[in-house]
Amino acid sequence: MRTISENRAFGGVQGVYTHASDACGCDMTFGLFLPEEAQLGAVPVLWYLSGLACTHENAMVKAGAQGWAAEQGIALVFPDTSPRGDGVADDPAFDLGQGAGFYVNATQAPWAPHYRMWDYITEELPRVLFNAFPVDEARQAITGHSMGGHGALTVAMAFPGRFASVSAFAPIANPTASDWGRKQFSAYLGPDEGKWAAHDATLMMRKRGFDGPLLIDQGTSDEFLDLLKPEALAEAMAHRRQPGILRMQKGYGHSYFFIASFMEDHVNFHASALLG
Amino acid sequence: MRTISENRAFGGVQGVYTHASDACGCDMTFGLFLPEEAQLGAVPVLWYLSGLACTHENAMVKAGAQGWAAEQGIALVFPDTSPRGDGVADDPAFDLGQGAGFYVNATQAPWAPHYRMWDYITEELPRVLFNAFPVDEARQAITGHSMGGHGALTVAMAFPGRFASVSAFAPIANPTASDWGRKQFSAYLGPDEGKWAAHDATLMMRKRGFDGPLLIDQGTSDEFLDLLKPEALAEAMAHRRQPGILRMQKGYGHSYFFIASFMEDHVNFHASALLG
Repeated sequence: MRTISENRAFGGVQGVYTHASDACGCDMTFGLFLPEEAQLGAVPVLWYLSGLACTHENAMVKAGAQGWAAEQGIALVFPDTSPRGDGVADDPAFDLGQGAGFYVNATQAPWAPHYRMWDYITEELPRVLFNAFPVDEARQAITGHSMGGHGALTVAMAFPGRFASVSAFAPIANPTASDWGRKQFSAYLGPDEGKWAAHDATLMMRKRGFDGPLLIDQGTSDEFLDLLKPEALAEAMAHRRQPGILRMQKGYGHSYFFIASFMEDHVNFHASALLG
Repeated sequence: MRTISENRAFGGVQGVYTHASDACGCDMTFGLFLPEEAQLGAVPVLWYLSGLACTHENAMVKAGAQGWAAEQGIALVFPDTSPRGDGVADDPAFDLGQGAGFYVNATQAPWAPHYRMWDYITEELPRVLFNAFPVDEARQAITGHSMGGHGALTVAMAFPGRFASVSAFAPIANPTASDWGRKQFSAYLGPDEGKWAAHDATLMMRKRGFDGPLLIDQGTSDEFLDLLKPEALAEAMAHRRQPGILRMQKGYGHSYFFIASFMEDHVNFHASALLG
């Protein structure tokens, strides 16, 4: 692993690191914020999964999360959203290929050799983190935005007991019924829709739900609402009697200004589950 | 109008009053809490509509609302849930007849002569209140529980501009699709389901929504969840992009212990809209 940068931030350190990834067959870069408390021992960690066209960097510089995490003594990890590099398949569209891994393991050509973001996020990067940094594997929470909200919800529901809490900002909530999902799942996973279901938060909510606190924020003026389909997840949550909070935030769009506006609430929400 | 009782409470006065109701053709009783600020001038008012089998008294004595309302300087009005008296039609069931007015104007025998709770709540009682007490007609909000949550939501959506905010505790959210609704609407309104739609919060949400803040709390262990159908309203809210918050509260049931647990949040939510 190679240190790209380390900057003092809010009493702690905002680092960027690169490592050779077996899962993705390429170098992968991630951001990690460690609060001051990490000097004394392992701290809880909040995963932040980013959206389409983002790298590890977008949330790290625009979400305004570090100050709130520092107040709570929580680490933040910002993974990349796909494999990258000259030898990695890509597509001219912003919503397929590099920057658009959709947090699945691709089984179809030309994506299968590198696009294994599910394994990367759920197996390989956790091992890297917990081996190299003072971060407590027993105290994890997860959030994300848009495609990353989809990732956070599906990963959290797929690993009961791993995450104390889950939240999402404007998640792609029902990708098997959306052009943000059907296109990518067709490309990465093939035409058998039965294989898509494990990567759809609404279908996962109907099937198993999440055993812990759940918070979702969605802007009512989000320019992608028709692709995000919060109504399907809302119905599934309430129908399942899933404990949780869904907030439809008047006038907010899909941007990082929306995320930053409610980041304090999300960090404090997770802190309550991680530290309470 | 006759004063039944007036008790000092939280620096203000909790009163109970009876008046001859033209709408209901009988005497009607209501509770009114006036905070200390009402001595100086008209104060904002939060309506609380009660659920099945309740009178004006249940929320007044069990919801714990007065202390929070006093802190905010807001009046609370607690209407009864139906016409009452020896000459008023009734039914042996707890969910039809006296105590179960469902906030509609009945058109069918034997209910039509007295069961006009829609007119009572939306026209007659407001006139009584605003003429006799220092309560500000320009600053109203509304909430309610179960059948009263149904009433609060449908009344709020039916009168755009009248209420600054609306909330509900475990509302009967989709009565046209529930045994809490179909039975009563059949009896009071007759078999034409087209006449039921104006009294169904989910259908109203699909059709027009609410122009202001909205908050709904629902316990996940509510013993009547299958009759309340929060999933239908959740879907309608998110689909409409209605600004609002839906909270599925883990482990809470349908009782006043649930209401009291979250009354502070609801009073403060309405205060923010009324005073902000």
